Amino acid sequence: MEIKKLGEFGLIERLTSLLKIEDKDVVVGFGDDCACVNIEGKLILFSSDIQIEEVHFIKEKISPEDLGWKLISVNVSDIVACGGKARWGLISIAVPENIELEYIQRVYTGIKDALDFYKFSIIGGNTSRSDKIVLDFFITGETKRFISRSGAKEGDYIYVSGHTGLSRAGLELLLMDKERYEEWEKKIIFFHTRPVARIDFVDTVQNANSCIDISDGLVGDLGHVEKQSKVKIVLEKEKLPVHPLLEKFCKTYNKNPYEYILYGGEDYQLAFTTPEKQDKGFLIGYVERGKGIFLKDKNKISKLQERGFEHI
Amino acid sequence: MEIKKLGEFGLIERLTSLLKIEDKDVVVGFGDDCACVNIEGKLILFSSDIQIEEVHFIKEKISPEDLGWKLISVNVSDIVACGGKARWGLISIAVPENIELEYIQRVYTGIKDALDFYKFSIIGGNTSRSDKIVLDFFITGETKRFISRSGAKEGDYIYVSGHTGLSRAGLELLLMDKERYEEWEKKIIFFHTRPVARIDFVDTVQNANSCIDISDGLVGDLGHVEKQSKVKIVLEKEKLPVHPLLEKFCKTYNKNPYEYILYGGEDYQLAFTTPEKQDKGFLIGYVERGKGIFLKDKNKISKLQERGFEHI
Repeated sequence: MEIKKLGEFGLIERLTSLLKIEDKDVVVGFGDDCACVNIEGKLILFSSDIQIEEVHFIKEKISPEDLGWKLISVNVSDIVACGGKARWGLISIAVPENIELEYIQRVYTGIKDALDFYKFSIIGGNTSRSDKIVLDFFITGETKRFISRSGAKEGDYIYVSGHTGLSRAGLELLLMDKERYEEWEKKIIFFHTRPVARIDFVDTVQNANSCIDISDGLVGDLGHVEKQSKVKIVLEKEKLPVHPLLEKFCKTYNKNPYEYILYGGEDYQLAFTTPEKQDKGFLIGYVERGKGIFLKDKNKISKLQERGFEHI
Repeated sequence: MEIKKLGEFGLIERLTSLLKIEDKDVVVGFGDDCACVNIEGKLILFSSDIQIEEVHFIKEKISPEDLGWKLISVNVSDIVACGGKARWGLISIAVPENIELEYIQRVYTGIKDALDFYKFSIIGGNTSRSDKIVLDFFITGETKRFISRSGAKEGDYIYVSGHTGLSRAGLELLLMDKERYEEWEKKIIFFHTRPVARIDFVDTVQNANSCIDISDGLVGDLGHVEKQSKVKIVLEKEKLPVHPLLEKFCKTYNKNPYEYILYGGEDYQLAFTTPEKQDKGFLIGYVERGKGIFLKDKNKISKLQERGFEHI
């Protein structure tokens, strides 16, 4: 069987089932935004995320600075989703032999900006050669309490840390290959090329029952929460935040904004569920007993398809 | 400037100079086999090593099981070189969409065998798509004392944990594309495709002043020790261990065994220096005040060129 039939999630499931963890210091293994180990009473988080040319990015469509920034941000986002703070990173970089040193130095400028912003250090890694640019980042973090995808409880409120859908709209704009972009379009593209991990939500997430970062789309990622927490999730359409720029994009290009808000990937916002109401973020729904993800539009409730954004 | 003019080590130097580490918990940053941080008094090691198709391996020349085994072994070797034990790993795997699931499952069989042998667990990672197979491994370990490349002292004895040169001979045999290999040739190839990290040397390394694992060749890697420890290294030719299989290979193919012993890469043996004589390993030389690496052949001493095996 060729693996494209399995998809990314199917492949991960198959492979992880081959490996079993027998280690009392491992608090969380596969299946969450981070793995977590206990080192002398400290909860240390591990995660990794890769950027491969022509799979995750197109060299001509993203500046090297943005690429470096994004590499770090998507990794920090996984740490934040578990309630943690980034501590140390390792970078694996593989590049074609004929690449310009200046290009890589500019990638590192973006990386350095991100490290300064998120306040942590890269302390090691390796470099090698390859046909396509490969940037793989390993991140470690530290958390007081591990916030999992599997902790959502009946009666929880569901929050999202910010607007979703803009990153996908930005990607579509980039792929339009327009000769000239309007200022508002450039702003949307910025959401795709320069995502910001929500480190300002760490304290809020620490009070949550569950949290996940939105890399595969709001519904796709809440699907992980729904399955792993064994709950029913209800989103309220009128509460879903619609960004004015997304509204403009959808009017201009005749698109449905909810397609973007619900299914757009790579937003790197956080979706979390809490037993009490919160001051921060947008309240977008609630958790009930049962299963599945539903959209409530006034009095009509319909089941949402859980198609996420698969990288493979 | 194109980066091929810089080489792997030059590129690493350029890039790491762009990043600075300001973190009191970081014991060792770039420049050694592992980075090291202090977590509540425990010394935790981090390292990563990547295997890219057609750069580090040729798919048709190594079985998927061996590839998985090697990925883990080369990473464990870095941990052992710092005196540590492997604890937890993360794996990034990127593969073409049309690859057979069976191939990846066989890679994972090799990985699983290695994890069982080295006694640690993979606890996370990510999968994605790419044209060529990319396997990136992030390893963490634990050590009582961090054994560095920079600790060699005047008067130290220099040891190597086992024979060097066989891996390069194995690679050359593979690249000959012979229709049929002799049994002794297959044994040599095995040293290339199935290296074993010297976990049996951890206690010995703990007593060393310095240690490095031999991935770039004995002279190339001792060159790092020489430079970072600011010492002179003298190898004694008659003490360098010559494996009988390497002797046979060199006689058969009219090669100089010392070319392989001194400059062959990917052996994953350990070179270490100690203030006292040791029971384990081969004593191959001594450390003096000064700089450079020299080969002593009876009464003749000559300076060795430090050309290592660069992956880029």
